[in-house]
Amino acid sequence: MSEAIDLYVSQNEARFLEELKELLRIPSISTSPEHKGDTHRAAEYCVDKLAAAGLENIELIETERHPLVYADWLHAPGKPTVLCYGHFDVQPPDPLELWESPPFEPAERNGNLYARGSADDKGQMFSHIKALEALRAVHGKLPVNVKILLEGEEEVGGISVAEYVAKNPEKLKADVALVSDTEMYAPGLPTLNIGLRGLVYMEIEARGPARDLHSGLYGGAAPNAVFGLVELLAKAKDADGHLLIPGIYDDVEPPTAEEKASWEALPFDEAEFLANEVGSTALTGEPGYSVFERTWARPTLEVHGIAGGFTGAGAKTVIPAKAVAKVSIRLVPNQVPEKIVAAVREFVAKNAPKGVSFEVRVLSSGPGLMVNPDHPAIHMAAQAFSEIFGKSTVFTRSGGSIPIVGDFAKHLGIPTILMGFGLPDDGLHSPNEKYCMRNYFDGIRTLAHFFERYGA
Amino acid sequence: MSEAIDLYVSQNEARFLEELKELLRIPSISTSPEHKGDTHRAAEYCVDKLAAAGLENIELIETERHPLVYADWLHAPGKPTVLCYGHFDVQPPDPLELWESPPFEPAERNGNLYARGSADDKGQMFSHIKALEALRAVHGKLPVNVKILLEGEEEVGGISVAEYVAKNPEKLKADVALVSDTEMYAPGLPTLNIGLRGLVYMEIEARGPARDLHSGLYGGAAPNAVFGLVELLAKAKDADGHLLIPGIYDDVEPPTAEEKASWEALPFDEAEFLANEVGSTALTGEPGYSVFERTWARPTLEVHGIAGGFTGAGAKTVIPAKAVAKVSIRLVPNQVPEKIVAAVREFVAKNAPKGVSFEVRVLSSGPGLMVNPDHPAIHMAAQAFSEIFGKSTVFTRSGGSIPIVGDFAKHLGIPTILMGFGLPDDGLHSPNEKYCMRNYFDGIRTLAHFFERYGA
Repeated sequence: MSEAIDLYVSQNEARFLEELKELLRIPSISTSPEHKGDTHRAAEYCVDKLAAAGLENIELIETERHPLVYADWLHAPGKPTVLCYGHFDVQPPDPLELWESPPFEPAERNGNLYARGSADDKGQMFSHIKALEALRAVHGKLPVNVKILLEGEEEVGGISVAEYVAKNPEKLKADVALVSDTEMYAPGLPTLNIGLRGLVYMEIEARGPARDLHSGLYGGAAPNAVFGLVELLAKAKDADGHLLIPGIYDDVEPPTAEEKASWEALPFDEAEFLANEVGSTALTGEPGYSVFERTWARPTLEVHGIAGGFTGAGAKTVIPAKAVAKVSIRLVPNQVPEKIVAAVREFVAKNAPKGVSFEVRVLSSGPGLMVNPDHPAIHMAAQAFSEIFGKSTVFTRSGGSIPIVGDFAKHLGIPTILMGFGLPDDGLHSPNEKYCMRNYFDGIRTLAHFFERYGA
Repeated sequence: MSEAIDLYVSQNEARFLEELKELLRIPSISTSPEHKGDTHRAAEYCVDKLAAAGLENIELIETERHPLVYADWLHAPGKPTVLCYGHFDVQPPDPLELWESPPFEPAERNGNLYARGSADDKGQMFSHIKALEALRAVHGKLPVNVKILLEGEEEVGGISVAEYVAKNPEKLKADVALVSDTEMYAPGLPTLNIGLRGLVYMEIEARGPARDLHSGLYGGAAPNAVFGLVELLAKAKDADGHLLIPGIYDDVEPPTAEEKASWEALPFDEAEFLANEVGSTALTGEPGYSVFERTWARPTLEVHGIAGGFTGAGAKTVIPAKAVAKVSIRLVPNQVPEKIVAAVREFVAKNAPKGVSFEVRVLSSGPGLMVNPDHPAIHMAAQAFSEIFGKSTVFTRSGGSIPIVGDFAKHLGIPTILMGFGLPDDGLHSPNEKYCMRNYFDGIRTLAHFFERYGA
C-alpha cells in the first residue's frame, strides 16, 4: 500500500468512526414496516457520503420495498471494473433487554464499536466508501473503474436488488464483484470466503379445529394445531441433526479432499467454540462430519421461531386452532432451491397429522455458491489482505447466505470476492453486535490496497 | 315446583337478564394482572346480589390473589345444608378479532346471550343466587340451609379457594355441594355429571445456546431451543394420541361395562360432532376407544401454547436460545397428580435433546373424581331436572376439570352435584362464548325446585 494512503486513513480515523456512528444511529430495520422511513434515511446517508467520496452518477432508486443506491466512477480506461456491493439495512434488535448499551446508540468498549449493524453490514459496507474516498483524496483519481450498488433489503430477502441486477446487466457490467459481509476466520487472520450456503426461508402454518377448543371437553378427540406442527417439525430432522425430508441430500456435492485438508489446518478449539461462541452444554449435528463440514458444507434445517395458542402469563386450557413456525433450510453449492421447496411441500403433504392442514409460504430462497480461488482478482485480494494484516490469507467458506453473489454469477457472469473484516464473536443477528474498530480501519486500508494492486 | 316460583321467575326474567349482563360487563380475567381490579369488582357485585337475595353473614374475603365471597342462610333446622359453589372469574377473550360482538358487551342473538363468561361460569353461578332470591321472595324463607362460596381464581388454578376449604371445614360443613359449571349433554336433555377429569398444567421451558445465534454461521453445530422443545414434545404422544410418558397409564381405572353401555345409549353423531363442534377434517385420539371414552375416561396431553424465537413479520435467521410451551395432562379418576408430575419430570430429564436443558414449572394440579350416582341428593337433583325440562335425566362425565370438587370430597367429605345448564356449543374458553337464555331461566327454576324437594 502506498504510504500516503496509510497516512490519510490514520489522519482521518476519528472522522471515519464518527461518520459510521451516524449511520449506525439510523434504525434501518428492513423487516419492520414502522422503520421503513429509517431504511430510506440510511440510503440517503450513503448517497451523501458517496458524493463526498467523489463518486458520480449517484442514484437513489426507489423500489416497492426499500431503496437501492447506485454510483460509479469510470475514468480508468483499460483498467478492470469492480462492482462493490453492501447493504445498509439491519436485523431487528430484539431481545432488547439483553443489550448492554442501546442497539442504535453506538458505544465504544474494549476496542469494539457496539451497535446493531456495526459488523453486518454497515461497518463493512462503509469501509468501501472510505477506501474510495482515501484513494481519490490521495491520488486525485481511482486506480480501477468502480460501480457501487447498495441495498436496504438484505435482511428480508433482497428481492429489489435481485430484480435490479437481473434487469440491468449492461449497466452493472464488471470484471469482478467485491462484497465485505463476511468474517475473518480468527482475529488478525486474513480470510477470503470462497463458499456460501444458500437459503430457503419458509413459514409453515398449521390449522387444526375451526376455533380454539376447551382442552377438557375436546382433549382426546380434537386435533391440536400446535401439536400437529410439533409432530411435523420433529419428523423433519432426527436427533443427530440428519434431515429426514426425502431428496434433500440428492445434489449435495462434498468438499474436495484438498479443501477438507485446508480446513483441518485452521486453528479450531471445539471446547472453546462450544463454551464461548455457542454457550451451551453440547454441540449438535451429524456424526462423522467436522464442525466445518456441518456448518459450511452440509444442508441444515432450523426453526427460527414458533408461535401458537395461548402464550400469555398463567394458564389457559385451549386446544389451539392455529400455529405457525418460521423454518429455513441452508443449502450447499449445487443444491437447487426450487427442488428443495418442492421436497418440503411434498414432505409436509405426506406427513400432515390427522385433522391438521398446512400451508407452506416461501419468504425467500437462493442457492449456495462457490468462487474459484484461482481467479486473478481473488489472488490479488489475498495478497493485499496478507500485506496489511501480516499473515497468509486463508480460504474458508461460510454457512451463511449472501444471495446477491448468486445473482452476480447468474446475470453478470462474474465471480465475487468475499473479503470480510468481521470476527466470529461479532454477534451478528444477536444482542450486543459489535465491530472491531481496528478491523474497520485496517479494512479500509486493505480495500484501498486491493484497488491499487488490481489497477496496477 | 311450586307455581308461585315459576310465576316469580317469569315475572322477573327481564331483570334477571339485566343483572347478569351487568356482571358480564366486568372483564374479570383472573389470568391477567391488569384486570385484577375487575375481578375484585365482580366479587363486590356478587356480594351486593347475595345481600339483595336475603343471604346473611356475607364476607368478601381478600386473598393473596383474587377475593373469595362467602354467605349463608342457616334458619332451616333439621333440614339438610347445601354448599353452593361458583366462580366469577373468566378466561381471557383472545383472539379478540374472532368475536362477532365484543366479549364484555353482552349481546342477545338467536335466544343466546353472547359474552365471555356467560356460560363459564357467571351465568350458571348467578342462577344459584336468583333461585335463592325467588325462594325467599315467594316463601319468606329457604327450604334448606345454604352456604355459598364463590371464587375468582377458577381459571388460574383456584389456589385460594382450595386453601380456604382446607382451613375451614367446620364453617363450610354441609351435606352436599352444588356446582353449576358443566353442560347438558344436548339441548333440552337434563344431565348430571358424575365424573370429572383432573388436570396437571405445566410450563416447559427449553434453553439452547446462551444467546440467539445466526443460523447460517452456527446451523449444523449449535443446539436450537425451539427445535429441542419440538423434539421433546413430539416424543410425549404418538400419532394416535397415545401418551408415551412411562407410567402415565398406571392408575387408570376404566369405566364399568354398565357406564359404558349408558354412554352408548346417548345420542351422538360423530360426523356432526366433527363438523359442527370441532370443525376439522378428522378426529384424533386412541384407536379402540369411543369419543366418550377418549374425552371422559382417558388421560390426554395437550399443548395449549408455544412460543420461542422470532415470531414477528418477515424473516429473521436466528437459532433461538429459549422456547416455552404450556402443556397439560388431563387425569381420570384414580390417577394421582403428584405421580404424574414426577413421571413428566423424569420423561423430560431422560429425553432432553443434546445441548438443550429444560425446566418444568407446575402451574396447577388436581385429581379426577367420580360422584356416586346413588346418593339421595343426586336422585332428587335428577328428578327436579327431569320435571322442569320434561325428559329423563342422563348421567355423563366431563373431560374437563373442576378442582374444587376434589377439595370438597377431601376436606369436607361430601359429594358434589354437578348440575349444569350449559350446552355443548357454548364455546367455553373460545371466541363467541354464549349461554342459552332459556337455560338461564329454566336453570333458575330447576335449582329452586331442587332446593324445595331436598328440603321437603
